[in-house]
Amino acid sequence: MTTTIEVGMLGLGTVGSGVVERLSRAAVKIEQTQGLRFHLATVAVNHLNAPRTVSLPLGTQLTDSIDAVVTDPQIQLVIEVMGTLTTAKRAITTALKHGKSVVTANKDLIATAGETLVRLAQREGCDLFYEASVAGGIPILRTLTDSYATDTVQSVAGIINGTANYVLSAMTRTGQTYEQALRAAQRAGYAEADPTNDVGGLDATYKLIILSRFAFGQSLTVEQVRPVGITAVTTSQCQLAATSGWQLKLLAQAQRHGNQLYCRVAPVAVGDGRALSRVNGVQNGVAISSQAIGESLYTGPGAGSTATANSVLNDVIAAGQRLRLGTRGPAFNRNAGQLGVKRFDQLPQAYLLFTTLPSAVMADYANEAHFSLKPLSRGSYQTSTLSPVQLAQLQATRAITAIPIADSVAWEPVSVAPLPIRTNIAI
Amino acid sequence: MTTTIEVGMLGLGTVGSGVVERLSRAAVKIEQTQGLRFHLATVAVNHLNAPRTVSLPLGTQLTDSIDAVVTDPQIQLVIEVMGTLTTAKRAITTALKHGKSVVTANKDLIATAGETLVRLAQREGCDLFYEASVAGGIPILRTLTDSYATDTVQSVAGIINGTANYVLSAMTRTGQTYEQALRAAQRAGYAEADPTNDVGGLDATYKLIILSRFAFGQSLTVEQVRPVGITAVTTSQCQLAATSGWQLKLLAQAQRHGNQLYCRVAPVAVGDGRALSRVNGVQNGVAISSQAIGESLYTGPGAGSTATANSVLNDVIAAGQRLRLGTRGPAFNRNAGQLGVKRFDQLPQAYLLFTTLPSAVMADYANEAHFSLKPLSRGSYQTSTLSPVQLAQLQATRAITAIPIADSVAWEPVSVAPLPIRTNIAI
Repeated sequence: MTTTIEVGMLGLGTVGSGVVERLSRAAVKIEQTQGLRFHLATVAVNHLNAPRTVSLPLGTQLTDSIDAVVTDPQIQLVIEVMGTLTTAKRAITTALKHGKSVVTANKDLIATAGETLVRLAQREGCDLFYEASVAGGIPILRTLTDSYATDTVQSVAGIINGTANYVLSAMTRTGQTYEQALRAAQRAGYAEADPTNDVGGLDATYKLIILSRFAFGQSLTVEQVRPVGITAVTTSQCQLAATSGWQLKLLAQAQRHGNQLYCRVAPVAVGDGRALSRVNGVQNGVAISSQAIGESLYTGPGAGSTATANSVLNDVIAAGQRLRLGTRGPAFNRNAGQLGVKRFDQLPQAYLLFTTLPSAVMADYANEAHFSLKPLSRGSYQTSTLSPVQLAQLQATRAITAIPIADSVAWEPVSVAPLPIRTNIAI
Repeated sequence: MTTTIEVGMLGLGTVGSGVVERLSRAAVKIEQTQGLRFHLATVAVNHLNAPRTVSLPLGTQLTDSIDAVVTDPQIQLVIEVMGTLTTAKRAITTALKHGKSVVTANKDLIATAGETLVRLAQREGCDLFYEASVAGGIPILRTLTDSYATDTVQSVAGIINGTANYVLSAMTRTGQTYEQALRAAQRAGYAEADPTNDVGGLDATYKLIILSRFAFGQSLTVEQVRPVGITAVTTSQCQLAATSGWQLKLLAQAQRHGNQLYCRVAPVAVGDGRALSRVNGVQNGVAISSQAIGESLYTGPGAGSTATANSVLNDVIAAGQRLRLGTRGPAFNRNAGQLGVKRFDQLPQAYLLFTTLPSAVMADYANEAHFSLKPLSRGSYQTSTLSPVQLAQLQATRAITAIPIADSVAWEPVSVAPLPIRTNIAI
């Protein structure tokens, strides 16, 4: 009573090779426990003669034609692990139009064209799964779908870029400079040769966009999020914060308040008491707050070829089961987003301030503008609420770096005086 | 294209009332997103005229006959939230034999009779779901089933009793005595009037038994685990450990090594650097280590009526979908357990020692038996590896309490000398 599923794959890089290897190693177990046999019919690659780290099963065709895979009437399920935007989008579109289920790990594509592809999959009655696109080792999309089906999510806060987290953790723990930590991450294989998207916050933003669709049924755009990266964070800031009970983390947040969705991707200070502050190195963590469940945190590796391949394979099995049972096609229609989108930095909130200004000057600021300033250690302070205007004025001195404190937002408008102009001039 | 599922419920206490309330509140959403309508046909209660905190939907029958629910040919799905062992087992057995899908939150029953009931469900081709039986707010059983389907789990370590965790957290944070913290937990509704099973470790053991079936396909018994509770833990131990970078937690652990499964339910010291050490109060946390994914941690509320009712409802939706699609019956057959079972305390490992003995005496012990002893603060020490024999001898002085350090086990046999008898006599 085993059902054989004909599979095509696009791409045979690190993740693709991992999937091939795991598929073949777990074949017996999958057949015994799931009643499924996956037959890898064809794999499309760029260069037919490139060296491979994995040997393909006997009988698997290698081709350099994507169309040969996505239009093949024999193939029921397409695994897209080649990356790229335009080519992958066209390939997945064609596959769906040819009635195939699709599993992809392509975060950039799903973040930017996910809604179009999901609608197409719905129209065609096909499955489109992409668990591996966010936090490869954490089954967060499936959890949001299954366990929050009737719950109302209030906020999502994620450490969802392993490179940035590795760099910040290393700066805090070892005292390495940003550049040293980044080079160490590159040597260890935790950062790409061009790490721009990771350290600049774009990668985390893409993942937040996908998470927000599942958590709030709401789409975000990169323009709405306006990510702030970690390139300006210094080792001394990391270590001063740590001494005072805070860990600097590149946090991706989205939080519902009334009919607004507030979002942020930026370095923020997470209190030592929170489990999220203990998500270090290349680990990822996603904290969810909801009406029924309350506070939850899911942590695991964010990437890595085996964790990502495992995640792709779980999607393959889920899609395969639905092909076997004839039940594919999206069962779960998330609500269309009806929330307005704002950024956290439009709200008053508390900050850690790092500065070279004398404490007397800082005391003057605080006095004149009526916010409280708690000295933490030399040159670092914890503020009470600062309004966006106050923050901008402080930052205009260029001698003050402000890092928002996670969960310190004042949802209700507070009356806060702008800094007197003369103080700014005095610096 | 909405499918109506006829539902019967056993019990209308806190969780049952929560399920009724959530079912009715989420009815529209469930219909829109899942294509399902759940019609609560009958609820069986002990006393028909007892006061209720929830109003039943129009047309729902109240009965004091369990059989009226579990043998009713109209009813397709039975929700068992009444607790008890013998009565619930008989009810679920009858329901399954009458071809009904069953959702239960009954941890004690599933821990002690789960295998029998799962086999019966398989024979009858029915679904038996019980996600709410372990860590109500964490979808850990579904995650183990879906995301670790082809992975190999190496270890599971859980803070899975909210009462014990609340008490230990309060003792550490506020300096309350065990009795004070327990009474506070009772007042706050976090401990039962008779907390024996919670503080004694039996409740955590039941949950570990269920987790181990999903993680290792291996059954454990209470006799094999021999739980140690938290009743002997003192506030000073909690606080000395915390000062030295450790949090005392009632941890439930199972770990595969070769063809053995090692298990423990006992207070252990978890290092501050681990996210698990930050799972405080009534929160639960389950850390899983596996071959493909690596290290993961899932945290959330362990109980509470809304989180548990939400979990039951997720199972109800999953079972409902399978009824709608005609695909019910267990798809996933876990391996029969072939592992031997041992306890962690049969292995050499490191401990925190708390003692009233003079440091010179402790130094003597260490010198003569060749283990190293790192003083942490007055009366507390961190050991290198102690063998089971050494540990027993130290504990025989009755002036030493030893708390194992999580993940400090020496898997390979180490050569360790027993303590010289005269040292024991000298005390």
